Amino acid sequence: MSIDNYLALENHTKTIRHLENASHILGWDEQTMMPVGASDSRNQTLAALSQLIHQKLNSNDLKSMVDSVDVAKLDNWQQANMKWIKKRLSDASIIPEKLVTELTLNQKQSEQAWRKLRAENNYHDFIPYLEETVNSVKEVAKIKAQYYNCSSYDALLDDYSPGITTSKIDPIFSQLKAFLPDAIEQIISYQSQFKPRVFKQKFPLNQQKELSHRLMKVIGFDFNHGRLDTAVHPFCGGIKGDVRITTRYNEDEFISSLMAVCHETGHAMYELQLPQKWQYQPVGDALGMTVHESQSLLVEMHACRSMEFISILSDIVKETFNYYDETFSKENLYRHYTEVKAGLIRVDADEVTYPLHVILRYELEKALINDEITVNDLVHLWDEKMQSYLSVDTKGNYKDGIMQDVHWPAGLFGYFPAYALGSMLAAQFYQAALKAEPEIPAAIAKGDFRVLMQWLKENVHSKASSLSFDELVLSATNKVFEADDYINHIKSRYLSEVTIHV
Amino acid sequence: MSIDNYLALENHTKTIRHLENASHILGWDEQTMMPVGASDSRNQTLAALSQLIHQKLNSNDLKSMVDSVDVAKLDNWQQANMKWIKKRLSDASIIPEKLVTELTLNQKQSEQAWRKLRAENNYHDFIPYLEETVNSVKEVAKIKAQYYNCSSYDALLDDYSPGITTSKIDPIFSQLKAFLPDAIEQIISYQSQFKPRVFKQKFPLNQQKELSHRLMKVIGFDFNHGRLDTAVHPFCGGIKGDVRITTRYNEDEFISSLMAVCHETGHAMYELQLPQKWQYQPVGDALGMTVHESQSLLVEMHACRSMEFISILSDIVKETFNYYDETFSKENLYRHYTEVKAGLIRVDADEVTYPLHVILRYELEKALINDEITVNDLVHLWDEKMQSYLSVDTKGNYKDGIMQDVHWPAGLFGYFPAYALGSMLAAQFYQAALKAEPEIPAAIAKGDFRVLMQWLKENVHSKASSLSFDELVLSATNKVFEADDYINHIKSRYLSEVTIHV
Repeated sequence: MSIDNYLALENHTKTIRHLENASHILGWDEQTMMPVGASDSRNQTLAALSQLIHQKLNSNDLKSMVDSVDVAKLDNWQQANMKWIKKRLSDASIIPEKLVTELTLNQKQSEQAWRKLRAENNYHDFIPYLEETVNSVKEVAKIKAQYYNCSSYDALLDDYSPGITTSKIDPIFSQLKAFLPDAIEQIISYQSQFKPRVFKQKFPLNQQKELSHRLMKVIGFDFNHGRLDTAVHPFCGGIKGDVRITTRYNEDEFISSLMAVCHETGHAMYELQLPQKWQYQPVGDALGMTVHESQSLLVEMHACRSMEFISILSDIVKETFNYYDETFSKENLYRHYTEVKAGLIRVDADEVTYPLHVILRYELEKALINDEITVNDLVHLWDEKMQSYLSVDTKGNYKDGIMQDVHWPAGLFGYFPAYALGSMLAAQFYQAALKAEPEIPAAIAKGDFRVLMQWLKENVHSKASSLSFDELVLSATNKVFEADDYINHIKSRYLSEVTIHV
Repeated sequence: MSIDNYLALENHTKTIRHLENASHILGWDEQTMMPVGASDSRNQTLAALSQLIHQKLNSNDLKSMVDSVDVAKLDNWQQANMKWIKKRLSDASIIPEKLVTELTLNQKQSEQAWRKLRAENNYHDFIPYLEETVNSVKEVAKIKAQYYNCSSYDALLDDYSPGITTSKIDPIFSQLKAFLPDAIEQIISYQSQFKPRVFKQKFPLNQQKELSHRLMKVIGFDFNHGRLDTAVHPFCGGIKGDVRITTRYNEDEFISSLMAVCHETGHAMYELQLPQKWQYQPVGDALGMTVHESQSLLVEMHACRSMEFISILSDIVKETFNYYDETFSKENLYRHYTEVKAGLIRVDADEVTYPLHVILRYELEKALINDEITVNDLVHLWDEKMQSYLSVDTKGNYKDGIMQDVHWPAGLFGYFPAYALGSMLAAQFYQAALKAEPEIPAAIAKGDFRVLMQWLKENVHSKASSLSFDELVLSATNKVFEADDYINHIKSRYLSEVTIHV
């Protein structure tokens, strides 16, 4: 009944973490280094690791260890750690093995079908695959919903963004739907007078890589504990203490790759600044995808797309490419980095139109999982909402419409909201940081991210998962989670006479 | 009692193999990609995987599965597979857990001490560490020797080169000791008239990489199933079907890096041409380090240092570096690639002096493990033998003498002979290949390795571990393992009037 039982439990979860870490590095390798012919063997290795992790989470040893711990003797972090361990145990035990296998198989099959059929713009033949996956996901969600006493969709949300529920999301998304469509129209009409000038030269990949490394160092990335590589899609992978981000390069411009690097560096800084002491325990992990996305978007949207940062970026870019003309001016780069367009593709969207792409997906998947609509309803609702929210016509264009994202084919329902909520939270954190440390913009204008990163470390990163989502937001920003700071940020950057004339 | 029991066993060993594969890719990553700050966490992950593998090998499930198999019902490959599985089981079960932990700890400590003390040329302070490691290794060896009914040193040899015993090695090494010292003297004296001309330019790394890739493709390396990267020491890592070799580059010359690539590609071709059907079973593995080294040395020494290959190499080199002068002539490249020198360092040695470096180590480690000498005797015996075999003075130079290799600090006693035996076996396999396919040299002169690789696949690679070492050598070469073909090769390449005038 002593603390020893708890420490033995920590040892057990640490072993599980080592297996997960092996898996994460192998996952990164698969996307960056692995030769194509090795994919079957790699899938089998990753499946064997998953199975072992599942077995270890379901072992009677672990259950009796958990039961033997006297929670009253633990400190706050240990108690929070116990909460996460118990959550993992119940998640692993309440879903029957058979259903887990079925879901994994359906996900794999529909993802594979999607890759092929998307290229052919063939949504019709994809529907049966999607249905199978949706059915399995719903079955899992129902079991969790019953166990945790919530709606099916809330059960899924909790997997990706613990602490986030539809009751938190709905008012925020309503506010955005009321504000954004008109704002977008106004911004686009205004910006039509100030189009960014296009680049006239090529940007060699090795110089773009050099530039990326340099900016990562400016933001504070520690290359003793991480890497930058090339992959088809930018992502932040690896493990704590070995954080590996990726980007992709295009010789015709550096704008898109560079902001991907800033975005992924924001994710990376969260992982790198988590408390080392807890690196192998669940309580030491980042607090879900919404908070993670807030960190990448804070760095990308608030720090790196600010005029302060773009001024020094302009100098660094001139130096790196050893080339000087008007397209490299801070004014022109700022126009590139703040251009608003109502487009088809979520991942190409700017910070103003982006939330509407997500709201659309949220409304559809919530209704689907909660049995209010069927898979067959999705496509016409998609077309309708794209027209209504963004005035974009998607009829018949499945490839760049309903089939554009991997999430649904891969069964990741409940993930999407994190992207838009991350935008809200990024603005809220950034405002709180500015209030506490008003010199942040001036420091960024000198290429100094230390004050900002220190604030984030103290108020967000170092908390890891020791607080709930609500507690974290309140302790860092002194208010509840809301959309006001995001809306004010959009107004100030895009709709204020002072800032838009550059 | 049916074949089903055997198939269930295969499934179990396949899971173990997936964990080993995870370990191998992570090991490669550690040496090529991992940021330095991640090494502690990586060590822990690898240790957790090792422990799991050990537990799985020691599980009662596996033991009862093995006992339930009716060997009479199995085909030859399955029977051979059973033999290897049983060997792994007994190796894992006869050594007490405590001793395994102690050995691992001692190895780690002496290797760490070695890294530091070698740099300081401080052998004196290293002796106590080496003694600890040697004691643990000897304890393990004694347990194995008793179980397998052989000498302690033979028990260690079997770990690296199954089927190789001191009774096979001793006559071969005696023959070499009788032949090589005089031959070396004669060759060095002769070659003093024909020194290779040194290069006058720099060789940019990206061009050297391009050259390496091109030559790997010439030899037959399949980049759908492997990679080439940079590491401190060249090695062949990864797993079957995902073979990852490394080299290191020097801007002042391309000679050394290029032959490292050819050598590692030889190792890689063995792994790539093993039978796919058995890729996850022990019987599908390469047959130990001696055979592995024979494959790398066959490609490096016999194929790639031949005048046939060097003629096309000369053309490729001119093209790659876009530069033409006398240093790039086939004659000059051949001189570079066949220069013989009696030096201090094993890994820098040519194919003529190399076996003597190994024989020295073999004689010392065999006597040490079999309790004929102590750790304190090693250094003066080292000096004596270097003088006697290679006329090289090593007194007081520990760094480039007894402390030059990682093997002893890391506890890898019994490994060294594979390097020299690999030379013998490479010559024996190559002669057999030439006898069967006399057109091999003419094909190589055209950059065509297919006939050679097909012969190796049929006679060596496709056999994997289905045959014993003796059976493999006999079936491929129609004679027992011996040194004659190696000695004839040295005579013909270095001591014949016809070939040495280039």
